[in-house]
Amino acid sequence: MTLIVQKFGGTSVGSIDRIQAVAEKIATFQQRGDRLVVVVSAMAGETDRLLELAALCQKNPGARESDLLLSTGEQVAIALLAMALGEIGCPAVSYCGWQLPIITDANHTNARIRSIDDRLLRTALAAGKVVVVAGYQGVDEEGNITTLGRGGSDITAVALASSLGADECQIYTDVAGVYTCDPRVVERAQRLDAISCQEMSELASQGAHVLQGRSVELASRYSVPLRVLHSFDRGPGTLISDLEPLPTKERPGLSGIAFVRSAVQIAIRGIAAASGIAAALLRPLGRANITVDMMTQNVAADQTTDFIFVVQASDFDKAMNIADRAQQRLQADCIASDISLCKISLVGMGLRSCADMTTKTVEVLAAEGVEIRMIAASETKISVVVQEDCLERSLRSLHTAFGLDIETAHADFRGQRSLVAGGALSSICASSQDRSIPPFGRG
Amino acid sequence: MTLIVQKFGGTSVGSIDRIQAVAEKIATFQQRGDRLVVVVSAMAGETDRLLELAALCQKNPGARESDLLLSTGEQVAIALLAMALGEIGCPAVSYCGWQLPIITDANHTNARIRSIDDRLLRTALAAGKVVVVAGYQGVDEEGNITTLGRGGSDITAVALASSLGADECQIYTDVAGVYTCDPRVVERAQRLDAISCQEMSELASQGAHVLQGRSVELASRYSVPLRVLHSFDRGPGTLISDLEPLPTKERPGLSGIAFVRSAVQIAIRGIAAASGIAAALLRPLGRANITVDMMTQNVAADQTTDFIFVVQASDFDKAMNIADRAQQRLQADCIASDISLCKISLVGMGLRSCADMTTKTVEVLAAEGVEIRMIAASETKISVVVQEDCLERSLRSLHTAFGLDIETAHADFRGQRSLVAGGALSSICASSQDRSIPPFGRG
Repeated sequence: MTLIVQKFGGTSVGSIDRIQAVAEKIATFQQRGDRLVVVVSAMAGETDRLLELAALCQKNPGARESDLLLSTGEQVAIALLAMALGEIGCPAVSYCGWQLPIITDANHTNARIRSIDDRLLRTALAAGKVVVVAGYQGVDEEGNITTLGRGGSDITAVALASSLGADECQIYTDVAGVYTCDPRVVERAQRLDAISCQEMSELASQGAHVLQGRSVELASRYSVPLRVLHSFDRGPGTLISDLEPLPTKERPGLSGIAFVRSAVQIAIRGIAAASGIAAALLRPLGRANITVDMMTQNVAADQTTDFIFVVQASDFDKAMNIADRAQQRLQADCIASDISLCKISLVGMGLRSCADMTTKTVEVLAAEGVEIRMIAASETKISVVVQEDCLERSLRSLHTAFGLDIETAHADFRGQRSLVAGGALSSICASSQDRSIPPFGRG
Repeated sequence: MTLIVQKFGGTSVGSIDRIQAVAEKIATFQQRGDRLVVVVSAMAGETDRLLELAALCQKNPGARESDLLLSTGEQVAIALLAMALGEIGCPAVSYCGWQLPIITDANHTNARIRSIDDRLLRTALAAGKVVVVAGYQGVDEEGNITTLGRGGSDITAVALASSLGADECQIYTDVAGVYTCDPRVVERAQRLDAISCQEMSELASQGAHVLQGRSVELASRYSVPLRVLHSFDRGPGTLISDLEPLPTKERPGLSGIAFVRSAVQIAIRGIAAASGIAAALLRPLGRANITVDMMTQNVAADQTTDFIFVVQASDFDKAMNIADRAQQRLQADCIASDISLCKISLVGMGLRSCADMTTKTVEVLAAEGVEIRMIAASETKISVVVQEDCLERSLRSLHTAFGLDIETAHADFRGQRSLVAGGALSSICASSQDRSIPPFGRG
């Protein structure tokens, strides 16, 4: 008897029709004898509605009360899904995070799970029930409701799967799996049958929004086989797992190409004392919660240093303020900025053994007439910053050049076969168009 | 330092504007040094919205999941009120029922409170905070969310006031207090400064909807001084209390007149065996949750028995089915029914010592040409059933005849003075027009 943890996001339960469709899907698993724990997010739109109400009551709503408020979103969703399951004769029971409980630290709006008591889950499963659990939420040692931050429901699902020793943790979403690139931009992008946790983490951190890096890292740490599937289309999705080593022989160098639009570059030029840069710049950027995507430090002929870094366009104003103060402290000559950029990241374990990948990247882009503004390479990733209006043709030419296009790839080039029937490709993508996420965005 | 438990109903927190107005009101108490526990219901309309969603998911939603769903209504309200209090510099913290916890039995949708742990409340009060508590909800011994049924938030407030030994439990509502009759019908109805718990219970059970009988009985049992006030108008409201004995000398015989519209009378005539009536009729009516308001049993000249009883119009169909089955079992001649009736109840402790009140009632109605269909009297209540189209003139003539009209009454005829300033009469009533209440209606 297979034990599966399934997670359905806010769009999948965004209306009563969809909740009923999800219930039907769950019932087919139940009928074939699987034991099921189902994690759900708040119905799409509900979190925004609650945030708007909160903003009307308090300019900066307190974190504890915000968590108490927002957690009602999942509570409504689990009750409705349990009812919809009951209606079609599938016995179900629903639990909030505090009821199990899922114990977290007291870091409201971005809490970390400390422990899970799965006794209620095991009892309900043994009684033949589908257990519906509220994602994204927990409770601290003092009994205050907490929420887990971005991608929180995915984290709940992975944590429950780990605790229960589930055979698989299935993340149902609005995409058919993980793709070699965003199919909305690169038509020949293909769904991957499988990908390693580390590659998935890299893709996620470089702009692919199908999964949050935190849940992938959790799945890797606790050896939870994770699968991304479409909520309503049939298809095998993508297995994210380190459990079965992938055959390296047939592997191409790359797993996929991720990208981030709306990047900006800020350069502090002519810094006299290079030793104070971290203190003057990186520390305040970190404190302001600004992620520095890439950075370079060059010593010029006159022994002064240029420090150049890339941030999200949404962080531009805050970052420029910090750069201004740093310029004075570092006695730098000037600050220059360059907006309308984007970052393209080629991700793959294969990069470890292919030193000429960077050369090839540069050559492909040069042939397209795309100017590289910045480049950085690691063992598993090559990132280039280019003008945003060159994004599409850069992606397409790299996708083709590195053999990722759907015609040229072997159908089972990863040597893995999926256990799920079907397999139609979805036209919906695995990367998001931008990274503008609401402060309490959920997964 | 005074400790007050205040309860605000769904209408009082029905919009962000109203939540802010409630916060302002609470802040004035806080500023004068009172310690405050505030119980709130779900925002008006929210419960109906959730019930509609539930009905779309399951024809007969399970009680446990319904409670889980509906309890989010108060959870949203307490978080928003705590935020609104924070915004105006009034430190506040909010708690759901399960967080304190308020332990109930496992009787979902109509649970009874078993115990309250008030340690979190006392700690927060000692820290100078306003404590906002979700009304209507609790948690059973197994950790399942329960709700308390009709008037549940009032019950929460009274139970907390009792546990904390509060100086007063203030029920804020959309009426200025308890009236001698519904001011929408009887223009000369006056607000009572005070009323005993027993009289309030009687008025509530006879149709006055300002408070649920259950919360009044709880207040009486645990000696909690209860006060009904208008949420936004200033005024002393009505004190409901047995603590200070009311001076009997100056008291009029009646406290007030309640009524219920839409009553129906069902008569089973010519019953051969009178001994089986309870088994054949009252038991199935009770099981079907039908309240029998009044009943009479007459033995006719031919030794057969007529059994006549009054129920709500909404229960008519169910009651007729039961009467039909009873007719067969009791070998009765026929069943007759009379719709479009109403019930008027005169309530007062003074009735104990005034045996001629019933005579006076009959005479007043006869002078108005109102035919009495049924009459019943107890020590504290006289109820008459009349045609519904005679309701208004019956109420007005009785109100005048028994000296309840505002001009003729002494301003302080109860010998009690309120401690609250102001005192404008509201034009909103204390009796409801009918008793059609949604299944999960809240107080």
